[in-house]
Amino acid sequence: MEPDHSRHATGITLRELAERCGAELAGNGELMIYRVATLEDADPKSISFLSNTRYRAQLASTRAGAVIVAQRDAAATPLPKLVTSNPYAVYARIAAIFHPPAAAAPGVHPTAIIAATAKVAASAMVGPNVVIGHRTSIGERAQIHAGCAVGDGCSIADDVTLYPRVVLYANSVLGPRTIVHSGAVIGADGFGMAEQDGRWLKVPQVGRVVIGADVEIGANTTIDRGALGDTVVEDDVKLDNQIQIGHNCRIGAHTAIAGCTGIAGSTTIGRNCKIGGAAMIIGHLDIADGTTISASTGVFESIRTAGVYTSAFPALPHREWQYVASVLRRLRSFATRVRTLERSLENKASEKGE
Amino acid sequence: MEPDHSRHATGITLRELAERCGAELAGNGELMIYRVATLEDADPKSISFLSNTRYRAQLASTRAGAVIVAQRDAAATPLPKLVTSNPYAVYARIAAIFHPPAAAAPGVHPTAIIAATAKVAASAMVGPNVVIGHRTSIGERAQIHAGCAVGDGCSIADDVTLYPRVVLYANSVLGPRTIVHSGAVIGADGFGMAEQDGRWLKVPQVGRVVIGADVEIGANTTIDRGALGDTVVEDDVKLDNQIQIGHNCRIGAHTAIAGCTGIAGSTTIGRNCKIGGAAMIIGHLDIADGTTISASTGVFESIRTAGVYTSAFPALPHREWQYVASVLRRLRSFATRVRTLERSLENKASEKGE
Amino acid sequence: MEPDHSRHATGITLRELAERCGAELAGNGELMIYRVATLEDADPKSISFLSNTRYRAQLASTRAGAVIVAQRDAAATPLPKLVTSNPYAVYARIAAIFHPPAAAAPGVHPTAIIAATAKVAASAMVGPNVVIGHRTSIGERAQIHAGCAVGDGCSIADDVTLYPRVVLYANSVLGPRTIVHSGAVIGADGFGMAEQDGRWLKVPQVGRVVIGADVEIGANTTIDRGALGDTVVEDDVKLDNQIQIGHNCRIGAHTAIAGCTGIAGSTTIGRNCKIGGAAMIIGHLDIADGTTISASTGVFESIRTAGVYTSAFPALPHREWQYVASVLRRLRSFATRVRTLERSLENKASEKGE
Repeated sequence: MEPDHSRHATGITLRELAERCGAELAGNGELMIYRVATLEDADPKSISFLSNTRYRAQLASTRAGAVIVAQRDAAATPLPKLVTSNPYAVYARIAAIFHPPAAAAPGVHPTAIIAATAKVAASAMVGPNVVIGHRTSIGERAQIHAGCAVGDGCSIADDVTLYPRVVLYANSVLGPRTIVHSGAVIGADGFGMAEQDGRWLKVPQVGRVVIGADVEIGANTTIDRGALGDTVVEDDVKLDNQIQIGHNCRIGAHTAIAGCTGIAGSTTIGRNCKIGGAAMIIGHLDIADGTTISASTGVFESIRTAGVYTSAFPALPHREWQYVASVLRRLRSFATRVRTLERSLENKASEKGE
Repeated sequence: MEPDHSRHATGITLRELAERCGAELAGNGELMIYRVATLEDADPKSISFLSNTRYRAQLASTRAGAVIVAQRDAAATPLPKLVTSNPYAVYARIAAIFHPPAAAAPGVHPTAIIAATAKVAASAMVGPNVVIGHRTSIGERAQIHAGCAVGDGCSIADDVTLYPRVVLYANSVLGPRTIVHSGAVIGADGFGMAEQDGRWLKVPQVGRVVIGADVEIGANTTIDRGALGDTVVEDDVKLDNQIQIGHNCRIGAHTAIAGCTGIAGSTTIGRNCKIGGAAMIIGHLDIADGTTISASTGVFESIRTAGVYTSAFPALPHREWQYVASVLRRLRSFATRVRTLERSLENKASEKGE
Repeated sequence: MEPDHSRHATGITLRELAERCGAELAGNGELMIYRVATLEDADPKSISFLSNTRYRAQLASTRAGAVIVAQRDAAATPLPKLVTSNPYAVYARIAAIFHPPAAAAPGVHPTAIIAATAKVAASAMVGPNVVIGHRTSIGERAQIHAGCAVGDGCSIADDVTLYPRVVLYANSVLGPRTIVHSGAVIGADGFGMAEQDGRWLKVPQVGRVVIGADVEIGANTTIDRGALGDTVVEDDVKLDNQIQIGHNCRIGAHTAIAGCTGIAGSTTIGRNCKIGGAAMIIGHLDIADGTTISASTGVFESIRTAGVYTSAFPALPHREWQYVASVLRRLRSFATRVRTLERSLENKASEKGE
């Protein structure tokens, strides 16, 4: 029922795949491979992979023609294989051979509305109903899909892809090869206001959003412009869907953040961090390079030392949780009672001259 | 001040409402009903309902002409009434009589941009600035509202409604009568990348999103396409706003999920589950049919047995919470101290030969 | 490298700024100020400010021409200054002088699609690809930016700004000077359905969203229409990005809510509340005026007394957290053991006739 969208017409030999991906070939290198597939869904024309030990049992039963495995799993299958220290990375490279990113025919759709002072590269694609503001530049081979709204003074580098209905507010900057998924909003005003006499005064948000090269930004993610300076997302940062990044944050290069995470204003996340889904990091913090923050974890203090940090308590059956929660509420008196017990025993001991 | 948008011009008798909804009539069946209203806001031309015991006190004071109640509440009001085992469902049916879903005049707006190979049913409505891709099919009576972007190879069944500015990426499938609210993004790339030498390689996301019949998807909700296989949302699933569903998830039929919940990739949610708002479920889990997960709860392990699961700790006054949190941090030493006390008492007991 | 977008062409004297903002001038009032800047980034043509004590050390090293400070900090800098009890509010006013909100040239873009029965004020701006429904009114100087979809029967007051790609469902009401950022969806159906025989019946959502004056609504925030009555957001409420507000909520005047917060249906938030990011408030609650709810806090019961409420537990190193979580799970037996110790000591005491 699934359309045959993942099949390569003429096939590629396993030997060629090994060479193009830098993996070690074991078995029949002349085997023709036509597609990538999971161990469970593969057929003899497919190459599959094992990277998550959770799926190790499927290695024995897969119908795949060939597999990508780590050295430690190589003996567990008689299939022709690619052996590598990083099966998932080799899989990623092979999948990209069978599914190269779609190129778009250059040209500007007649319904696109492009300001006279904007510059659009001849090789760029600008889709229907796109609006591009004054002094904005669009780089070579960029793809600006249907309904995107790009404000004045933006800079969109070569090979950027904006999927349908992305919004860039004025003066946003996107580095080369960056991908932004639908519904993302880059450069909206940060949440800045001053309280006076019980009312709010809006604080003008006049900084920019500056995004580096090779960044990917998920659907409906929001990145606010800086209040004064810029909000910065460095190279090779990967942001999942529905992430919120407040004004004047800086996200260090190669950091990956899973969906639904919120980062409040003026927080700096280091390089090569991994942040789980639905994490929450308050404002004005510094998170060290290489830090891992678990899913659903709240961060309320700077993290100076790389490591794994967690605060999410796992679900329990409701009745049991109710009991835990009720004891939690009474922890204060509980602590007092233990102290009392200790004193009482100490007193007894000293009475006896122990 | 509110416009009279909920009033039926000619009215319907209470007897007819009883018959059309399968409820038991008690009292004057000839009473004309013109609208639905809450107990608090009702006037004598309105029918109201009691389903949440929280509002029971309003039953005595309502100015409604008639009410929908459970048997146990029937004696508590002298008003003409519909008696039923499920007042909220009967209310839903009656409200739908007074407020039938808006039908749209068939036809394609002249500003819509429809690929030559797309097929749009003659009875469908395609609004202004809609973009529809190659080989996409739009079913009978479907409503595709302003500014939607529907990619190539999508299949939209009969009676589907897409509110303004929905995005479907290529190859997405929507079953009959499914409703998608504004800003939802269906089929964006899942969050898949392989780490190599401190950098990220994008893993092509080549599966689809397949959504069943009678599904409702809330505003700004995102459902990612599968990495290899499909992400599946089965029939009659109800998703609130701002939900994130990762690649290769499967959501079982009749499951309802409240707003702001995130479900990471490759997790399977059973049938007839109820998931509270702002829950977070990590990836690669299985949740049993009929499971209830409380609001704001984190799920980090598969749930094999249906039941209610909770982990959210309720708010306390900040000072009290600070104390609880500080004891929490010291629970390790606390446990040690209790063990020490126990040993100390055991020693005393054994010294005395008890 | 940053464009010179925050510089005032001719400059303004410090004396004039003091007068226009009601601050006390100390030092050279003839100093010309051309821009606002942070203490760290300021140059001698800039005015900067100190309101967060976290940045106090920068006061000594700033290159700013002048600063805005509280009385207690005035002696800490020899620079010309504005002294005030509320430096951040004075800064907000001065920043607004240097960065007045952009006015838009009046007029309707030729690609906008406006229903014949809609009324658009002559001074309003309606951008490209905007769609405006029947009987909708757009006030004086309103700005409706590219790609917004405004349903039938909406009322948009004077000086409202809708950034690109906002959606208003039918019958939504926006008060004067309200700002709505891109991707926000106002008036989608609330999450209402009745369960019957394991299936869901949709409950028609026929109320409205009514938003007051001077409200700001962040990017990708969603506010659902009422089920029967209205969902109400009162004057001067400030909502950050990616907030979800359920049907029939009421948010009191001057309340500010940070990003990623979810508020379930029929909850009433009082006036002048402050709600931190990623908070979660379940439905049918009442929150007292002036309440503060900390970031990442879950609220499961009404709050009758203003104060600060918290439930978020801060992240710990993962190993430590695992230990805490495992003790948490055993709190029930833990409580029993302490009770046993207490009884044991009481018994000993009574044995001895103490």
